[in-house]
Amino acid sequence: MAKKTKEIRPKARIPRGFRDRRGAEIAAEREMLARISAVYEAWGFEPLETPTFEYTDALGKFLPDVDRPNQGVFSLQDDDEQWMSLRYDLTAPLARFVAQNYDALPKPYRRYAVGPVWRNEKPGPGRFRQFTQCDADTVGAPAPYADAEMCALFVEVIEAAGIPRKDFRIRISSRKIVDGLFEKIGLDSEDEAERRLNVMRSMDKFDRLGEEGVRLLLGPGRRDESGDFTKGVGLSDAQIDTVALFLKSAIGAGLKTVSAISKTLGGTKSGEAGLDELIAITRLLPEDCKGVVGIDCSIIRGLEYYTGPVFEADLAFETQDEQGRPVRFGSIGGGGRYDGLVKRFRGVEVPAVGVSIGVSRLLAALEFAKETGAGRAFDGPVVVLALDPARMADYQRMAAELRAAGLRAEVYLGGAGMRAQLKYADRRGAPVAVIEGEDERAKGAVTIKDLVLGAALSKQIEDNVEWREAQPAQFSVSRGNLVEAVKETLARPRARS
Amino acid sequence: MAKKTKEIRPKARIPRGFRDRRGAEIAAEREMLARISAVYEAWGFEPLETPTFEYTDALGKFLPDVDRPNQGVFSLQDDDEQWMSLRYDLTAPLARFVAQNYDALPKPYRRYAVGPVWRNEKPGPGRFRQFTQCDADTVGAPAPYADAEMCALFVEVIEAAGIPRKDFRIRISSRKIVDGLFEKIGLDSEDEAERRLNVMRSMDKFDRLGEEGVRLLLGPGRRDESGDFTKGVGLSDAQIDTVALFLKSAIGAGLKTVSAISKTLGGTKSGEAGLDELIAITRLLPEDCKGVVGIDCSIIRGLEYYTGPVFEADLAFETQDEQGRPVRFGSIGGGGRYDGLVKRFRGVEVPAVGVSIGVSRLLAALEFAKETGAGRAFDGPVVVLALDPARMADYQRMAAELRAAGLRAEVYLGGAGMRAQLKYADRRGAPVAVIEGEDERAKGAVTIKDLVLGAALSKQIEDNVEWREAQPAQFSVSRGNLVEAVKETLARPRARS
Repeated sequence: MAKKTKEIRPKARIPRGFRDRRGAEIAAEREMLARISAVYEAWGFEPLETPTFEYTDALGKFLPDVDRPNQGVFSLQDDDEQWMSLRYDLTAPLARFVAQNYDALPKPYRRYAVGPVWRNEKPGPGRFRQFTQCDADTVGAPAPYADAEMCALFVEVIEAAGIPRKDFRIRISSRKIVDGLFEKIGLDSEDEAERRLNVMRSMDKFDRLGEEGVRLLLGPGRRDESGDFTKGVGLSDAQIDTVALFLKSAIGAGLKTVSAISKTLGGTKSGEAGLDELIAITRLLPEDCKGVVGIDCSIIRGLEYYTGPVFEADLAFETQDEQGRPVRFGSIGGGGRYDGLVKRFRGVEVPAVGVSIGVSRLLAALEFAKETGAGRAFDGPVVVLALDPARMADYQRMAAELRAAGLRAEVYLGGAGMRAQLKYADRRGAPVAVIEGEDERAKGAVTIKDLVLGAALSKQIEDNVEWREAQPAQFSVSRGNLVEAVKETLARPRARS
Repeated sequence: MAKKTKEIRPKARIPRGFRDRRGAEIAAEREMLARISAVYEAWGFEPLETPTFEYTDALGKFLPDVDRPNQGVFSLQDDDEQWMSLRYDLTAPLARFVAQNYDALPKPYRRYAVGPVWRNEKPGPGRFRQFTQCDADTVGAPAPYADAEMCALFVEVIEAAGIPRKDFRIRISSRKIVDGLFEKIGLDSEDEAERRLNVMRSMDKFDRLGEEGVRLLLGPGRRDESGDFTKGVGLSDAQIDTVALFLKSAIGAGLKTVSAISKTLGGTKSGEAGLDELIAITRLLPEDCKGVVGIDCSIIRGLEYYTGPVFEADLAFETQDEQGRPVRFGSIGGGGRYDGLVKRFRGVEVPAVGVSIGVSRLLAALEFAKETGAGRAFDGPVVVLALDPARMADYQRMAAELRAAGLRAEVYLGGAGMRAQLKYADRRGAPVAVIEGEDERAKGAVTIKDLVLGAALSKQIEDNVEWREAQPAQFSVSRGNLVEAVKETLARPRARS
């Protein structure tokens, strides 16, 4: 029997929770990020790029999801035995960068950053394990000035991305207010840190699960529709009542909310400090932001490192879920103050505040608001057909001339016949095909085929006959007029579907 | 004794072999990538973004460096036990994407991609474990047309990035020519794959180690200056002689080289096929590329997946090494034909060819050629001083007015005194500071401080006295003229160092 190496073919599949992205979406995102970056730079923020890996101990453990190994991060051990993790956000690496380069940096240090982050989470619909964030942070500037500036910047950035002010709200709260609540229910001692965290996680689900669901999470635990059981925090009924009262009083913006919360917290020191912060921020906001930014203490923000004010941007308009039911679009980003993050390294407190935009969430919102071209096909280039291999250099020259005139153009390279080449041009979304057949070549001519008009005609759309005849879908010009003729064809009025 | 949690502070340090990048470098790279992407799009290439992770088996093992665990990639095991790796290039993920979406894609499929790749290699000076690549590939197009187009595109892209044609060369060879060499020395049987690989790796070092070094690597092995020993391939003296003769005859471009190589290979089938390919590509090149692209069979390209022509772009100018000695700048990218990469998944051959640009190498070359601003400081924004916390909203309004006029502007937020604020403005590279002190405020005025002129004056530069007096480093204007005055100051002729 002949010895034969058995060929094992790997299956072409993308890893779970990751995705490929093609032309139109990338182009729309790139355009949006350019607009956002321009605003950040206009406000004096400087770009920074840190590597995708950080040492695991430097990154710290601040992620809300503890149900997963590695606290939700992707980690591996380097050759020298040190553990490295892929960054789960852009803030923890910033803290490392600032601590490492503290003396060399201007203070306050304003930086912005755009890049992928990774979460080792259970993938789900619309829930990916790699996504792009776009952050701005001010390190070394005290509250409430930097916080107010950050809110105003946040408003301007979302507007620059393409969402009108009427369509979103920035809700602000403070981690100190939640501390006040913990004081109130006697959960403020040092050894209750773990339970406090679990209480916050439960509160954060108020939007989604409502009062009854949160009560179960705070008390005995909750079984969801899929049958999964989440362990409860085990608070007493009295404690749960206070948290529920707080959550209900904390919804709705403005000073009425402030006074309601103030009553619930019953004058705890932290609670009052937090409320004072929020009032100060509100006062410092530019006039044109005051209708957009409002106090709302029901927002929590999952990350553990916040120490003061937190912000969250939500879209005001409704969208639909997979079953077609109306749902609020929800958060497109958030942020807050994290005065302890640089301190982890340096031992001294370095005030810092920032915002983070979920780029694909915002892009989806834009697409929903029909403000971008994310939904449209990537417009193809002009395709020069290649009917005779011996004349390839000539076809390339035609494409080069078109490009030199500022157009996008390519030569078909698949080696197929005319019909297949035209089908290819269609698939590429090419607006025009250039054909130089044998007859044409003998006459020094080329044929220009208007594929947009051609598609319209083949659909038997009711056109004005005169207009149709004046602009035929296919016509011949002399080779010397190629560029001009293509340009004129592209300039024809279009009724693209 | 009081119980106290011992505080363990992590050290703020960046992982080995990674780096942080700041404003000026990022801005220069972004500008360069925009120019490159515009050329790719003009040629009909569509952007594609694949995730950073691929399943390890899908990625395949094609890296040249086998001295490291994991074949030079960063890998980890997912919850479902599948191994995932961070991509080491942008080509292997493209092959997976094409195989997975084959029927839905136009063929040929032209795509470009920009993004980070990772190599789990030993870090060294200028050798990082994460770097950015910028690739263009055509999948589904046969040789030699697509190869010739790829070479012409490569030339145009490097030129668009900012390197004049006189300063670089594209050298082309073919993996088939090397196969011919293996045939010639009797190393072409199936069970010699591993040794062939090691021979190629040795040949690839001809540039750096010279003939004597490569002879040692091909024979008994070689000890480098640091004392590290690299095991030799163990070829016979006769085999080594042939390889050395090939390497020497293969240097230098053009048809003379072709005939010399043809003689060395002594009419082996693969060798002749490879040479025919190269001649065909050369003939198909546009006239204006013929001086830039040349045959040179001493180039190897490390990646194992190439099956035909390979390309390498080298800068023609010299630079200096760390000891100040002149060295050739070397490769800034390369590519080639890899007809087997999609076949790994699908079983049928899908022709494909591409080029990859090492973005930071090219950026370094540009900086060297003084074509970009990568070396200059990131120009700072206008800084509005904040001398009275109670007036913060007014300062913010000034900054907002400046931004609305298209300038970059920020309010100082550190809470320090005037001197420290001006020092901060200097550190930020701010061209202008805006000061509204108590006296000025009473008069409805603001002070504009020209920091560029101020710096020049403080250096006692010999200026024309009249000019200096006409443009004082500091002057007062009414609040209403703030924007106009700042604009005028920024428009002053500058002799910035």
